Amino acid sequence: MRRFFILAFLFILFFATAHEQKEQFILKPIGMISKVKESTKLILEKEYEPALQGLDKNSHVWVFWWFDRNDSVEKRSILQVHPCGNPENPLTGVFACRSPFRPNLIALSLCRILSVENNVVELEKIDAFDETPILDLKPYIPGYDSADDAVTSKWKR
Amino acid sequence: MRRFFILAFLFILFFATAHEQKEQFILKPIGMISKVKESTKLILEKEYEPALQGLDKNSHVWVFWWFDRNDSVEKRSILQVHPCGNPENPLTGVFACRSPFRPNLIALSLCRILSVENNVVELEKIDAFDETPILDLKPYIPGYDSADDAVTSKWKR
Repeated sequence: MRRFFILAFLFILFFATAHEQKEQFILKPIGMISKVKESTKLILEKEYEPALQGLDKNSHVWVFWWFDRNDSVEKRSILQVHPCGNPENPLTGVFACRSPFRPNLIALSLCRILSVENNVVELEKIDAFDETPILDLKPYIPGYDSADDAVTSKWKR
Repeated sequence: MRRFFILAFLFILFFATAHEQKEQFILKPIGMISKVKESTKLILEKEYEPALQGLDKNSHVWVFWWFDRNDSVEKRSILQVHPCGNPENPLTGVFACRSPFRPNLIALSLCRILSVENNVVELEKIDAFDETPILDLKPYIPGYDSADDAVTSKWKR
């Protein structure tokens, strides 16, 4: 009987560990968006300042940020929405629109750079809230990042 | 003396827990890239099939994938590189180029869609390896995702 319990315990332990090890990736915020009056800034953690070297040679930057207001199991399991929150738009998969509800809450905005100083990037504007966590920055590369003949859905606003 | 040890233990426990709670976000792969001979496919987990609804109305898609070959503490702390691996290019911050070394290993590729069927999206091509984990898909929206007057650095290949 005791042997049975030991075996059962090891069995449960094995499956609990296997479940824990399901593949996942860890993101750490690299800074925060700051919106004060007319000014929009990316304030990076001081440790990431070297990673901005040369960004001032670019006019536009991709800002990757986190839809932090939707970070719950319930919201992350929403797979279809009416785009732009308008019920007149057909029910659409979140991978077929720019919904802020999605399994991985990565947001992407193309922004014009006004200045780069120390750990701060000043932008013309961004469609994100004040104090939103930033994940990554990449320079916008015309050609590589654009498609002249692209077709997409038109939604009612 | 015993009271001291109990207090010390609680103190250590508190700080260990505080350290664990440093802000981080969890990503779960939504599928894998499959490259077999000439064919490039995004094979999504079956559970995400509803999220593709309507993607076939788009000609181009942003594919967000994970630089999984660089997922180590050492590689994720590289903040400057010579772009394109060419020492003739000036040392540049990883946020000012498209280096696969970066704190958060998010990769972004603009791809032409050939077909969308069930949980599979066939692409013309993608600059990623076979079996790379996929994080997110977003439709490419001309205008919102492009800048006609953009300026960027030119690197030697």
